[in-house]
Amino acid sequence: MSMTFEHTTLGQRVLFGTGQAAEHLTAELDRLGATRPMVIAGERVQAEAWSATAGITAALWWDEVVMHVPVEVAEKARTAATEASVDVVVSIGGGSTTGLAKAIALTTGIPVVAVPTTYAGSEATNVWGLTEDRTKTTGVDDKVLPVTVVYDAELSKTLPLGMSVTSGLNGMAHCVDSLWAPRTDPINQALALEGARALALSLRGIVADPDDMDAREQALYGCYLAAVSFAGAGSGLHHKICHVLGGTFDLPHAQTHATVLPYVLEFNAPAVPELAGRLATALGGETSAGDPAGAAVTALRELYTAVQAPCRLADYGFTADGIPEAVERIVAAAPASHPVPVTEQNITDLLTAALTGDRATVAA
Amino acid sequence: MSMTFEHTTLGQRVLFGTGQAAEHLTAELDRLGATRPMVIAGERVQAEAWSATAGITAALWWDEVVMHVPVEVAEKARTAATEASVDVVVSIGGGSTTGLAKAIALTTGIPVVAVPTTYAGSEATNVWGLTEDRTKTTGVDDKVLPVTVVYDAELSKTLPLGMSVTSGLNGMAHCVDSLWAPRTDPINQALALEGARALALSLRGIVADPDDMDAREQALYGCYLAAVSFAGAGSGLHHKICHVLGGTFDLPHAQTHATVLPYVLEFNAPAVPELAGRLATALGGETSAGDPAGAAVTALRELYTAVQAPCRLADYGFTADGIPEAVERIVAAAPASHPVPVTEQNITDLLTAALTGDRATVAA
Repeated sequence: MSMTFEHTTLGQRVLFGTGQAAEHLTAELDRLGATRPMVIAGERVQAEAWSATAGITAALWWDEVVMHVPVEVAEKARTAATEASVDVVVSIGGGSTTGLAKAIALTTGIPVVAVPTTYAGSEATNVWGLTEDRTKTTGVDDKVLPVTVVYDAELSKTLPLGMSVTSGLNGMAHCVDSLWAPRTDPINQALALEGARALALSLRGIVADPDDMDAREQALYGCYLAAVSFAGAGSGLHHKICHVLGGTFDLPHAQTHATVLPYVLEFNAPAVPELAGRLATALGGETSAGDPAGAAVTALRELYTAVQAPCRLADYGFTADGIPEAVERIVAAAPASHPVPVTEQNITDLLTAALTGDRATVAA
Repeated sequence: MSMTFEHTTLGQRVLFGTGQAAEHLTAELDRLGATRPMVIAGERVQAEAWSATAGITAALWWDEVVMHVPVEVAEKARTAATEASVDVVVSIGGGSTTGLAKAIALTTGIPVVAVPTTYAGSEATNVWGLTEDRTKTTGVDDKVLPVTVVYDAELSKTLPLGMSVTSGLNGMAHCVDSLWAPRTDPINQALALEGARALALSLRGIVADPDDMDAREQALYGCYLAAVSFAGAGSGLHHKICHVLGGTFDLPHAQTHATVLPYVLEFNAPAVPELAGRLATALGGETSAGDPAGAAVTALRELYTAVQAPCRLADYGFTADGIPEAVERIVAAAPASHPVPVTEQNITDLLTAALTGDRATVAA
């Protein structure tokens, strides 16, 4: 099978260590020669932000963080950054916080150092998003890629168990969907499989003991690779389905991703047996030379059982009435190069199975 | 097991496709807005260079390429590049050619696009080397990292079978040694294991049919990841041993690396069982939960048998007389953080086994 691809590796430093955020942040600002940091941290993470910035002096402390980065908030923050002669933006928080830092970098060119406290993954991409008049605009610009990411599992340990699991499975969906997404390539696939391996390990560990810091580290690490591989490979069928379910039917983001994933894997795995076999291994499942697709699906199901993951869209308000419209939108949005060509029938079957949790419906 | 690391990902584009070098090179120069390329290609690859540059017009064509990049040659090339108002350096060839392009970039800042025709891997690193008065100086500078690498297996198909195997195993040594080298981290390890997987596949394929282009692609791809992981992780015990054997005893580079690798794996694998198990899987071996170290060693031995790899240092002029001096130098140079602490006795055992190909000597 001939190998043809274009792969762009984004240059970035990662400093990873539990309890080391303050030390790493101090050293990194020194390395960058930055002396006037703007610290962005929303109200819910003020304690974490104080601890992480113990070794630096903020030239500006910013706590106005709003979901989806409204343009007005971005403009205010940009003006404040410029007036305070800020030379680095340190974002401490989840996707919205990183998003605001990226919005500042986009127009000012000020470099960003990201300190994530959730598993969102925005810190590993060059994608920005801004919302104006209820419309979200996204774009790609290398200026917004954080130059450095400081990961510290201590900062994510207050994430509740349920949210850790669905958020981790959202990361798992990035990894699995990257295996066949439009711009997938062997490098994205290798990083995605490593992310899946780390996430499978971590989620079992976090469920067994929510304070297991080794497991929290694996989750952060796995979600980082999930973001890297997803940024490289783009949105595959799984993300198109979840985009329709979230956008048109208003289903909750992480839960929808977690629920839909096994059905999409079951749908695609037989068409990519070699990758399915490697995924089964990554998930810690039994590998079977004879049926790698089945092995991957079984391994993911076993993980879902172990972590008590959501498995029915019906639990989130989706009903059979919605299936025809969802199918129409998904078929229109599905990537052209998909391993299994989508049809109204097979997407109807997939959604029907996901609705009720009846996996047998999907079997070919 | 707690996870602490610093990882720097170098930003770079990879364009990979058999028979597509000319098309990729043309598109990439367009993308960079470069119109005055300097093409560096040594005499042995003029035909390949003509074919790869079919879509571009060289402002300067340079064919003086000398091993280890003598400073005089670099200076001449730098002056010529400046006089010709060159805005991109396109290197077509092996490590010496890429090295000359890097030497130009180091002082002029002109970006490099590399088109490798061997498995050397220099194209994926920010390491430069220059030789003056028989002394080689090396350094690290992001300016010398090629912005883009164009891989085309057609350009490497004239590499003879024997050289393909030893060169591929040299890449395998980069991958395996990266698992425990001083700056190793989970990301380097994942890329190294993916490289090992591709190299194991490719070498079996090339030996079965030297014209198997799929296998040649896997070899190029595997050696690229070998270089990426090695650049990140640094030199482990394997490379310290081979550096002494090459530097002090003048043994041939690729053959020495190929010969020594299984002995170093046997030495270290029991101390890193989890990585050993993943390596066994990557090499296509049977995995054994009970003895992952043994599984890795067996998998590498089976590959060596399949590709008729070298396995005795005695075949390259090394003798038992040399062991004491080699041991002394290796023990002094060995990385401090090595998984198995080195002693005069265990390195003597390792070299004794590698000398005669008697693997039993190494067993603990």
